[in-house]
Amino acid sequence: MLERFKVPPEDEVRVPEQSLRSTVTAIFEKMGVPHQGAVEGADVLVMTDLRGVETHGVSNMLRSYVQAYKESRLNPRPQWTILRESPATATIDADGGLGIILGGPAMQLAIKKAKNTGVGVVTMYNSGHMGAVGHFAMMAAKENMVGICMTALSIRVAPTFAAEAIFGTNPIAIAAPTKSEPPFLFDAATSTIAENKIGLAARVGASLLPGWVSDSQGRPVLEEIPAPNRGEYHLLPLGGTREQGSHKGYGLAMMVEVLSTFLAGTLPQVLNPVGRARSHFAAYDIAAFTDVDTFKENLDSMLKTLRTTKPAEGHERVLYPGLPEYEAEQDRRANGIPLHKEVIHWFDDITAELSLPRLKVM
Amino acid sequence: MLERFKVPPEDEVRVPEQSLRSTVTAIFEKMGVPHQGAVEGADVLVMTDLRGVETHGVSNMLRSYVQAYKESRLNPRPQWTILRESPATATIDADGGLGIILGGPAMQLAIKKAKNTGVGVVTMYNSGHMGAVGHFAMMAAKENMVGICMTALSIRVAPTFAAEAIFGTNPIAIAAPTKSEPPFLFDAATSTIAENKIGLAARVGASLLPGWVSDSQGRPVLEEIPAPNRGEYHLLPLGGTREQGSHKGYGLAMMVEVLSTFLAGTLPQVLNPVGRARSHFAAYDIAAFTDVDTFKENLDSMLKTLRTTKPAEGHERVLYPGLPEYEAEQDRRANGIPLHKEVIHWFDDITAELSLPRLKVM
Repeated sequence: MLERFKVPPEDEVRVPEQSLRSTVTAIFEKMGVPHQGAVEGADVLVMTDLRGVETHGVSNMLRSYVQAYKESRLNPRPQWTILRESPATATIDADGGLGIILGGPAMQLAIKKAKNTGVGVVTMYNSGHMGAVGHFAMMAAKENMVGICMTALSIRVAPTFAAEAIFGTNPIAIAAPTKSEPPFLFDAATSTIAENKIGLAARVGASLLPGWVSDSQGRPVLEEIPAPNRGEYHLLPLGGTREQGSHKGYGLAMMVEVLSTFLAGTLPQVLNPVGRARSHFAAYDIAAFTDVDTFKENLDSMLKTLRTTKPAEGHERVLYPGLPEYEAEQDRRANGIPLHKEVIHWFDDITAELSLPRLKVM
Repeated sequence: MLERFKVPPEDEVRVPEQSLRSTVTAIFEKMGVPHQGAVEGADVLVMTDLRGVETHGVSNMLRSYVQAYKESRLNPRPQWTILRESPATATIDADGGLGIILGGPAMQLAIKKAKNTGVGVVTMYNSGHMGAVGHFAMMAAKENMVGICMTALSIRVAPTFAAEAIFGTNPIAIAAPTKSEPPFLFDAATSTIAENKIGLAARVGASLLPGWVSDSQGRPVLEEIPAPNRGEYHLLPLGGTREQGSHKGYGLAMMVEVLSTFLAGTLPQVLNPVGRARSHFAAYDIAAFTDVDTFKENLDSMLKTLRTTKPAEGHERVLYPGLPEYEAEQDRRANGIPLHKEVIHWFDDITAELSLPRLKVM
């Protein structure tokens, strides 16, 4: 994550992992979520914060989930339905449950199918927000598989040349297992920046760089501006402008819709206003393609090659997807998760409201 | 394609589709390729030119293929081997055959598997160049499936912060069928521009825009420059700079390597100098997920919504991936394929050398 998005040290409060897990689990249970689901939802959020992905951890997401449960926009006790199934595939109606809680079982189903046929692909629709989808991709990596997860939600990104937003930020995540290097884990929006980064920028007082957003008429903003208010901007597809390849970010956003929304037999939100998240889970059993050891050793060589590649002037080292997140996890497990003091105030308010013990900080 | 890459009208010669097919087929046969393979290779190249994707049609590619056959770097009569297979997957050693000729049979295998299990995934390595991989994705779309093809080759793209090139341009293609709209077909390099665009820019005298390439030390070039010579630059991942999201283009390039190279049990070229192309073919049988008619009608609604979205100031209309290529195909089937006069000279030379009839132009 760029420096500008990080919590300024004077505003940060460190929270121990276990304390955050307990409080988040208890909040989910107060929303009516059964214990196991509450534990899984807390795990996704806390793992995301441990890995340094602040945009999709407790700070930005939990309060919106709580709000949605309170307004009955999320179903705390969903009964999912498998609408269609084949040896390698399934399509699930998530019954309005929260995506971060149902993503785990959906990926487990893809993994089970991959064990039988070599590949498993599951599409799920009608769920709430999916959080950081890399979490679900990693579940497959832990089973000696390559895992992919994508999700589509909301109407924020204006296609190349368009004056109106059509797509969500439609992230793509892929994870693959290693033997000795920290695992490969890529998880990124197909827009120039994730929607949550705008809120984070506002909270930490950061400005937006040229090419990150368009004005409300679809004209890419090519100067640095303060974080704008909702309704005053659209996000741009990765690339930013046509000349820099925004048609590729736009095409990748459509790829996510095809593999998630359309394969599930439903429509994007722009054509289906009640639309909830549509997601795609894929597990590729490495042993069905090649030797697992060969795969892992080859990937280790590659990742080591990448992180030891000669850096360009002004840079200390080359990173690979998953490496900085792995390093953040080591630090945060030992030293606690840094939250903005404003987020701690929210926890104090919500725990008081729900008659729960206060969140323990360090 | 940006205007700057198009053949200037005064330099273009129009060639009828059938004439180009016959000459290209005959050239492949002179290289020792059996008739059926020669026809398929010509089909991939000519379809690519018909769709207006000049970078990957006869102009840029055929002469390099001829050169490779002459130098025995391509095997005209490959015997592929299926190294490992499961109900939904297969891994193929392509025996040094040309990718554009073997890509069709590889996708057919993925389609056959998808008919049985819902999804089919095939990895193929040790092939020559794959051409425009969207061609193979479209094969699945014609069978009421979603098709994906990706390929990795060469060492041209410097990862974010790196001084050295590590990846190829690693394109991703996806196609999906429609009922009444021109089909969805996305096919794009995960670099800011495709390698072939540099050669094309040199041929048509176009300059490169800021953010398209780095200098030989990995520093992104942020001003407009003439097309540089080989060795004087690296390509940049989609995004261009870290601030504009080049780490996402870089991660997508690695995604292509994981699904193509590593799943096939082999290594990228940077770690395997004899390395040839590694590719990934996936077919998703729509009927295994939902009703085919629902899928097509939904996708039609979406594509129509996209092309009728209000355009931003200065733009006539919003396009979607596959629409301009469809329109180019209608024009070129009727009016011939525009080739640069320099390409016609090459055809005249090679047909003379191989004792073939001259390419018929309009």
